[in-house]
Amino acid sequence: MNILFFGDVVGKAGRQFLARRLGPLRREHGADLVVVNGENAAAGAGITPAVTQELLRLGVDVVTLGNHAWDRRDIQTYIDSEPRLLRPLNLPAGTPGFGSAVVNTAAGRAAVVCLHGRVFFPFHPDDPFRVVQSEVERLREITPVIVVDFHGEATSEKAALGYFLDGKVSAVVGTHTHVQTADERILPGGTAYITDVGMCGPQHSVIGMDVEQALQRFLTQLPVRLEVARGPAVLSAVVITVDPGTGKALGIRRILEHEQPDDPDNSD
Amino acid sequence: MNILFFGDVVGKAGRQFLARRLGPLRREHGADLVVVNGENAAAGAGITPAVTQELLRLGVDVVTLGNHAWDRRDIQTYIDSEPRLLRPLNLPAGTPGFGSAVVNTAAGRAAVVCLHGRVFFPFHPDDPFRVVQSEVERLREITPVIVVDFHGEATSEKAALGYFLDGKVSAVVGTHTHVQTADERILPGGTAYITDVGMCGPQHSVIGMDVEQALQRFLTQLPVRLEVARGPAVLSAVVITVDPGTGKALGIRRILEHEQPDDPDNSD
Amino acid sequence: MNILFFGDVVGKAGRQFLARRLGPLRREHGADLVVVNGENAAAGAGITPAVTQELLRLGVDVVTLGNHAWDRRDIQTYIDSEPRLLRPLNLPAGTPGFGSAVVNTAAGRAAVVCLHGRVFFPFHPDDPFRVVQSEVERLREITPVIVVDFHGEATSEKAALGYFLDGKVSAVVGTHTHVQTADERILPGGTAYITDVGMCGPQHSVIGMDVEQALQRFLTQLPVRLEVARGPAVLSAVVITVDPGTGKALGIRRILEHEQPDDPDNSD
Amino acid sequence: MNILFFGDVVGKAGRQFLARRLGPLRREHGADLVVVNGENAAAGAGITPAVTQELLRLGVDVVTLGNHAWDRRDIQTYIDSEPRLLRPLNLPAGTPGFGSAVVNTAAGRAAVVCLHGRVFFPFHPDDPFRVVQSEVERLREITPVIVVDFHGEATSEKAALGYFLDGKVSAVVGTHTHVQTADERILPGGTAYITDVGMCGPQHSVIGMDVEQALQRFLTQLPVRLEVARGPAVLSAVVITVDPGTGKALGIRRILEHEQPDDPDNSD
Ligand SMILES: [Fe+2]
Ligand SMILES: [Fe+2]
Ligand SMILES: [Fe+2]
Ligand SMILES: [Fe+2]
Ligand SMILES: [Fe+2]
Ligand SMILES: [Fe+2]
Ligand SMILES: [Fe+2]
Ligand SMILES: [Fe+2]
Repeated sequence: MNILFFGDVVGKAGRQFLARRLGPLRREHGADLVVVNGENAAAGAGITPAVTQELLRLGVDVVTLGNHAWDRRDIQTYIDSEPRLLRPLNLPAGTPGFGSAVVNTAAGRAAVVCLHGRVFFPFHPDDPFRVVQSEVERLREITPVIVVDFHGEATSEKAALGYFLDGKVSAVVGTHTHVQTADERILPGGTAYITDVGMCGPQHSVIGMDVEQALQRFLTQLPVRLEVARGPAVLSAVVITVDPGTGKALGIRRILEHEQPDDPDNSD
Repeated sequence: MNILFFGDVVGKAGRQFLARRLGPLRREHGADLVVVNGENAAAGAGITPAVTQELLRLGVDVVTLGNHAWDRRDIQTYIDSEPRLLRPLNLPAGTPGFGSAVVNTAAGRAAVVCLHGRVFFPFHPDDPFRVVQSEVERLREITPVIVVDFHGEATSEKAALGYFLDGKVSAVVGTHTHVQTADERILPGGTAYITDVGMCGPQHSVIGMDVEQALQRFLTQLPVRLEVARGPAVLSAVVITVDPGTGKALGIRRILEHEQPDDPDNSD
Repeated sequence: MNILFFGDVVGKAGRQFLARRLGPLRREHGADLVVVNGENAAAGAGITPAVTQELLRLGVDVVTLGNHAWDRRDIQTYIDSEPRLLRPLNLPAGTPGFGSAVVNTAAGRAAVVCLHGRVFFPFHPDDPFRVVQSEVERLREITPVIVVDFHGEATSEKAALGYFLDGKVSAVVGTHTHVQTADERILPGGTAYITDVGMCGPQHSVIGMDVEQALQRFLTQLPVRLEVARGPAVLSAVVITVDPGTGKALGIRRILEHEQPDDPDNSD
Repeated sequence: MNILFFGDVVGKAGRQFLARRLGPLRREHGADLVVVNGENAAAGAGITPAVTQELLRLGVDVVTLGNHAWDRRDIQTYIDSEPRLLRPLNLPAGTPGFGSAVVNTAAGRAAVVCLHGRVFFPFHPDDPFRVVQSEVERLREITPVIVVDFHGEATSEKAALGYFLDGKVSAVVGTHTHVQTADERILPGGTAYITDVGMCGPQHSVIGMDVEQALQRFLTQLPVRLEVARGPAVLSAVVITVDPGTGKALGIRRILEHEQPDDPDNSD
């Protein structure tokens, strides 16, 4: 089974480049499952019901979120109605929405888990290690193919979680930093791992946002408003090949595509 | 001018693999200047006078540090005597040691700056943007070839600093996360940039440290002691080509080498 | 000279109780100078030009701010026109507004400084120790009577700053935590000190905000909106007596008044 | 039932003043239960088995801890053998030691809970709200008299927890900041509350530690070693009167005593 996982989609620029490239990449890699982190899909901060549907219509199977999950208020009521939109699993009991999903793909069943780190965040998810452990036990009753989106800041926490789940899930794919790391590999127990898959958003930017505004924020320490940057986008993904019988990863490959400036569709 | 920049060297494992590969890589890339971040060179935490000298004897021109600069107490008195060992420039006035160095290479003069980020750190460096700005102005009187090691956690702060210095320095090379990023590029103004060059240390590890100990720390939240992991190392670097007349970067290439398990020298 | 310093005023509830009590307290204590921290005066978050004027019309001489200084956007343009409204002194060079003020009181000149801590804040003021040191040197050319509002979270940073300025200023009054501390005293060098003066806002509240909303925020980790709580207010202040010739503090006394529930003016 | 609760004891200075005053205060207030936070009792950082026994021999019934619980390594093995020494309840499952204790006093049974906050700490306890809720339910089967030591930094988290437990426990006593707050009161449901009881340690200090060393740490940002300050101590406590039949608090009073410089026993 081939799994195509796209990192944090930032704004319209990210969505448009994704829309154009998703079909060709799916065909090229024979993807059976497509996962997209959508926490920045709506103007760089959060996601709306309309944007969720837009992503799903492209052929995305599961949309994951992160610390920006609740940036748009209407998502709190909507999320219970859309099992393909995942908020982090390890939020307090009673949180609206779902933290994992099972998808019937042409190559068999696959589960996706959205998980959140605790290091350096100003809010307090539950222990990701213990919460994901029992969820993985539950999901393995259904399918051995399990992909975990681990949304975190600290490379140490992400690596530790990768090793913690090694041999128990098919892949641990880091998100949140918006910068792709070059450490994709298969861990000893057969779990594909990358610290961060990177983003789908404007190339010439500070993690997707306007360079000048981001700079002003650092220089002035004022609450400068940040808008999604303009110009051609980058698309960051990994394609993971999994043995559907055992759930072991057979391969992980990074994808990093740069939109060309004169691309006719870049009309953002 | 070719500049070879190695990321955070972790422990003996990192030092040994670096010792073996530095000569061949220097020759292969025709390196005129070699920079190594040594903040984890002594058993994973800090650096000692002896380890500093060991690195310099390998042919390293400048050793940079970061948040672990002062982990070993004797470094505070030693650092004033070794101008090739740099602590972050933007520490409070009166801090021992040097924050930049000028090296006479075969291809001309080059300056190296060690700079520290503020986001997510529990200590308080001065504003890296303003401090580096005036230092760069000063150094440009001496040479246009300036390499900045920006030791930081947040990808946003690192990207912003890259754009801030774009066109004013030859390269901004991120360190600290111990994971190489895949976003090396030349910014519009001619500055080579990478968010993090990655580490030189044990492959099978949590950012260089023992996997089981790191996991226990996350799982128990106890002050579990962390030791450098055992086994073959990874070596992370970038090679940057700079026009010595203008200081503009002409290219930046990532290097990522994996020590083989049966390598005879891996006797750690 | 008698100085009356009121802690963070929270919303209309805080403003109304202050309005009612300021005159009587001023007379009772023979106050020559009245300082109010107004960072939460506008609906609990930030301050507006209108609320600033409302406070000044009450007879407040200087309004100080803190981490909420910029919560209301129009304050950035307004603040340059009102020298009696102080934002923290140790913000980056170029920040709008003033960080200190000199007031001509009936008992002589007095200076007020607004200063911000760095520990536990997600933004990055400049080093408060060095910045306040040179400002105090400058102000002492004008008057020995200097009151510093130190807006900080960590008790260690606040105590350290108190000792740092001991003998150089008349008083260091902590703000920000909204809870009055019982450690008011004269330090050995003659500086009056209190870790936190406390707030002027609703009693039955979580630091001024609605109890149920605050609890929901902790329990759900969702971005629950916080409104100023209802009901009778508390008023927290200190009165400091200073020798106007030397600037030495002669006394510091805490004031903590509770509005009665059946108070006719409590119509919020 | 009268409960005497002393805040964080800092070093020998704190222990000695406590030793001298515990008996007289116990008699004066007719205390049936004595609780002491001992997280800084051993030279300012952590506690040892010997220091634990020293405190218990003074007549302390329960010693609570906080973020410094594990500063001394031998405590991890010792703590399982001493049910009167409490580490925070909301540490990960499997943590050594106990998070609560039940004491048979002359006035009936009383339970003590040690709980830890999450805001601003660099480690990750479990959710204090949910964890304490189920523990309180369990303890109320045994006794309605329950005292919670809430070790936290942020005043908002402490106040929220107070209201959360209001009517369910006899008292919520904050610790950790080492500065006594002046907000002691009985909450509407009958729970005694104070944001922080303050410390028992050297008066002339930065939260118990040497002023000059603490200042150097802030000024240099170097890892300056902190030692317990010298000189006369302060003793901070609350005495809480509880109806042993209902567990409702009838009163809470702050105690703040200053050791005299010429006190013969101050031989530290
Ligand atoms: Fe994120
Ligand atoms: Fe994101
Ligand atoms: Fe580092
Ligand atoms: Fe490092
Ligand atoms: Fe504040
Ligand atoms: Fe405030
Ligand atoms: Fe503590
Ligand atoms: Fe403490």
